[in-house]
Amino acid sequence: MKKVFILGSTGSIGVNSLKVIENLNDEFKVIGLTVNSNVDLLVEQIKKYNPEIVAIRDKSSAEKIKDLVPNDVKLFTGEKGLIEAAVSCDYDIFIGAMVGFAGLAPTIEAIKRGKRIALANKETLVVAGEFVTNLCRENQAEILPVDSEHSAIYQCLVGENLSEVEKLILTASGGPFLNKEKSFFDIATIDEALNHPNWKMGNKITIDSATLMNKGLEVIEAKWLFGLPKEKIDVVIHPQSIIHSLVQFVDGSVKAQLGLPDMKLPIQYALTFPNRTQNYFTRTDLTEIGTLTFTKPDYSKFECLKLAYDALECGGTAPCVLNAANEIAVDKFLKKEIKFSHIPGIIYSALNKFVSNGLSDLESIFEYDKKTREYVRTLN
Amino acid sequence: MKKVFILGSTGSIGVNSLKVIENLNDEFKVIGLTVNSNVDLLVEQIKKYNPEIVAIRDKSSAEKIKDLVPNDVKLFTGEKGLIEAAVSCDYDIFIGAMVGFAGLAPTIEAIKRGKRIALANKETLVVAGEFVTNLCRENQAEILPVDSEHSAIYQCLVGENLSEVEKLILTASGGPFLNKEKSFFDIATIDEALNHPNWKMGNKITIDSATLMNKGLEVIEAKWLFGLPKEKIDVVIHPQSIIHSLVQFVDGSVKAQLGLPDMKLPIQYALTFPNRTQNYFTRTDLTEIGTLTFTKPDYSKFECLKLAYDALECGGTAPCVLNAANEIAVDKFLKKEIKFSHIPGIIYSALNKFVSNGLSDLESIFEYDKKTREYVRTLN
Repeated sequence: MKKVFILGSTGSIGVNSLKVIENLNDEFKVIGLTVNSNVDLLVEQIKKYNPEIVAIRDKSSAEKIKDLVPNDVKLFTGEKGLIEAAVSCDYDIFIGAMVGFAGLAPTIEAIKRGKRIALANKETLVVAGEFVTNLCRENQAEILPVDSEHSAIYQCLVGENLSEVEKLILTASGGPFLNKEKSFFDIATIDEALNHPNWKMGNKITIDSATLMNKGLEVIEAKWLFGLPKEKIDVVIHPQSIIHSLVQFVDGSVKAQLGLPDMKLPIQYALTFPNRTQNYFTRTDLTEIGTLTFTKPDYSKFECLKLAYDALECGGTAPCVLNAANEIAVDKFLKKEIKFSHIPGIIYSALNKFVSNGLSDLESIFEYDKKTREYVRTLN
Repeated sequence: MKKVFILGSTGSIGVNSLKVIENLNDEFKVIGLTVNSNVDLLVEQIKKYNPEIVAIRDKSSAEKIKDLVPNDVKLFTGEKGLIEAAVSCDYDIFIGAMVGFAGLAPTIEAIKRGKRIALANKETLVVAGEFVTNLCRENQAEILPVDSEHSAIYQCLVGENLSEVEKLILTASGGPFLNKEKSFFDIATIDEALNHPNWKMGNKITIDSATLMNKGLEVIEAKWLFGLPKEKIDVVIHPQSIIHSLVQFVDGSVKAQLGLPDMKLPIQYALTFPNRTQNYFTRTDLTEIGTLTFTKPDYSKFECLKLAYDALECGGTAPCVLNAANEIAVDKFLKKEIKFSHIPGIIYSALNKFVSNGLSDLESIFEYDKKTREYVRTLN
C-alpha cells in the first residue's frame, strides 16, 4: 500500500485526488492533508480518511477547528506548517495540488526527500523550473504531471525516446472568449470569464483559461518537464478538449492522448504509473462526440500567451515575474479593481520593470516574486 | 547497415518501401526484390538498387526479361521461386508487400528464419493468424505491421502493457460509398469503387475499402497481432483518415497515432523500430486540416465488415474462406462479372458451404483456400 500526502486537499485537484484514491481502494492510503483555509471540508476529510498529519496555512482558520482535530492527528499551522507537515511524516507520493506560489516551498521539501511528486501546482515549474528539475535529478525525485495536457504528453512519450521528439503540441480549449472580439475584453464580466466551456476548476485557473495565460504557463512547464526549447512547444486551439495534447516525432508520426475532460484520469495515472488501473470513469465515445476541431491561437488577441513565450525566451527570473504579476492581476480582476483587458498590460509592465537577472536560484525567485507582487498591487 | 528483402517490390507498398530506404541512405541495403509480373519496373529497380537476388512469380513475364538481369544477380521464377528467393539470401528485414494469398508461403519461410517481418500482406495473418503467430514465437521472429492502422496501434502500445488494454479502435475512412444508399451498390461502377477519397492503393485493396472488407480483414489481423478477442476490437468511421487508430486502456485513457495518409511512415517505422529516424515527409498540421469527424459503421449497409467479425468468431478456417471468397468476388467485380452489391452474398454463401473444420494448420488453410476459390469462380 502506497502512502499519499496531499498539499491542498480541499481544492478541485485535492478533492478529485481523494475520489481517485477511494476508487483504488487498498492500493493507496492518505497520510497527510493540508489546506489553505477551507477547514470545514478538512474536518470532513479527516473523519473520512483518518490521516496521520494535517496542516492549515491560514492560522485564524486553524484556530476555529483546532478542537475538532482528533488527538492522534498531528496538526501544523501557518506557511511554515505546510513545510513542517511535508517533512514530518512518511509518504511515497506527494500530490502538489495547492494553487499559487504557496505550493512551491513544501513541494521542494518533498523533492529533497526523493519522493514521487504528482504535480498539479503550476508555479513549481513555472517560477522555479530550472532549480526544481536540477533538484529532482540530484534527489532522484520524479515529477508526474497532473494536468491533462502534460499527462497526455507524458503518456505519449512512454516507450519513446525524448531525443526523437520534434515538437510538443499543447491543446487549448480557447476558454469562454475564444470567439469574442478583442474589444469585448473591455466589458467582460467576472461571471462571463468564469464560465469555462469544458472544465470546472478553481477561479484563478479559470480566469487564466480565459486569457490563455493558463496555456502560456503550461508551455513554460512543458519546457522543464520534458527538457525541450520553446521552439519545440506549440499551442493549438481545440475547443472540445478531447485531445489533451500531442507529440510529433522526427519521423513525422504524431501521437495523442484523448479523454473526456476529467481530472481524475491524470491524477490516477500519476499515482499508478507505470501501471494503469481499471476504473469506471465514463469512457470516451468519439462517435458520440462526433467532431473535433483545431485552429491556430490568435496571439494578438490573447496577449498573455505571447507574454509567456517571451518570458520563457528571456529566462532567469522572467517567468517568476510573469507568474506573480498575473496572479495579482487576476486577483484584481476578480475584485473588480481592473478590467479583463488590463491583465496583459499589467504583466507586460512588470516584465519591463523587473528585467531578469538571468538567475534561477530560490533567493532570486522569492525576491522577484515579492517585489513584482508589491509593484503590481500599486497598479490600476 | 541492415539488409532488406522485398516480397512484392513493384506494388504500392514495394515502391514506397524503396523510397523510404532511399531516404534512409546508408542504413538499409536492398538485397532481394521479388515481383508478380511487372518486370519492366523490376528491371529499373535492379539497375537502381543492385540486389543480390530477384524472383519473378509469373514465368512467362520472367522469360521476357531474362537477358536484362545482370549475371551477378541470382534469378528465380515461379511460385516456388518466391520461396527459394526468401531462403537463398541473407537479410535482416523481410518486407511482405505482395498482395493476396501468394504472399503467405514466402513470408512463412522468412518467419522460420527468425527475421523481422515488416508485414503489409494482409492474408498472412487473416488466413493463418494462429499458425503464423505461433511460428513467430517459436522462431523469435517479430512482426512489425505495415499498414497505417496496425502501425498506429503498435506505436500507441510501446511502453504500455498489453494486459492493460481495454479496446483497440480501428479507424476506417468509410471509402467512396460512405454516404451512398445501399441501393446504390447495385449500380456502382468499377471506376466509382476505385475512387478512394484518401488513399492511392492497388485495385484489390481499394475495392475492399469500398466494401469495408478491408477493415474487416484488419480486425482479424489485429486479433492476431495484439492477441485480443474480437469483443475488444472496434471500428469507427473517420472519413479524414488522419487518426490512424486508437487504443483505449483500462483506466479510460485513450491514445491515438495520427498522420497524413502516407504509407511511407508506417513502412519506415517498421524498418527503424524501436527508433524513429528523421525524414522530410510532409508534417500533419491539424489547424490546416481543421476538422476530424467520427461516426459508427453501418453494419447492415457494409455487410462485409459484419461477415469478417462472424468469420473471426467462427475461427479455424472461416477467415481463410472469407478471404478467398472475397478475393475472387472482387476479381469478378473488377472483370464486370458481378455487381458490387453481390460481393457480400458470395462470401456469405462460401462461409456457409465450407463450414470451418476448427483447425488452423497450413494444410487445412491451403485446402479451404483452394476449394473456396474453385466454388466462388462458379458463382454469378
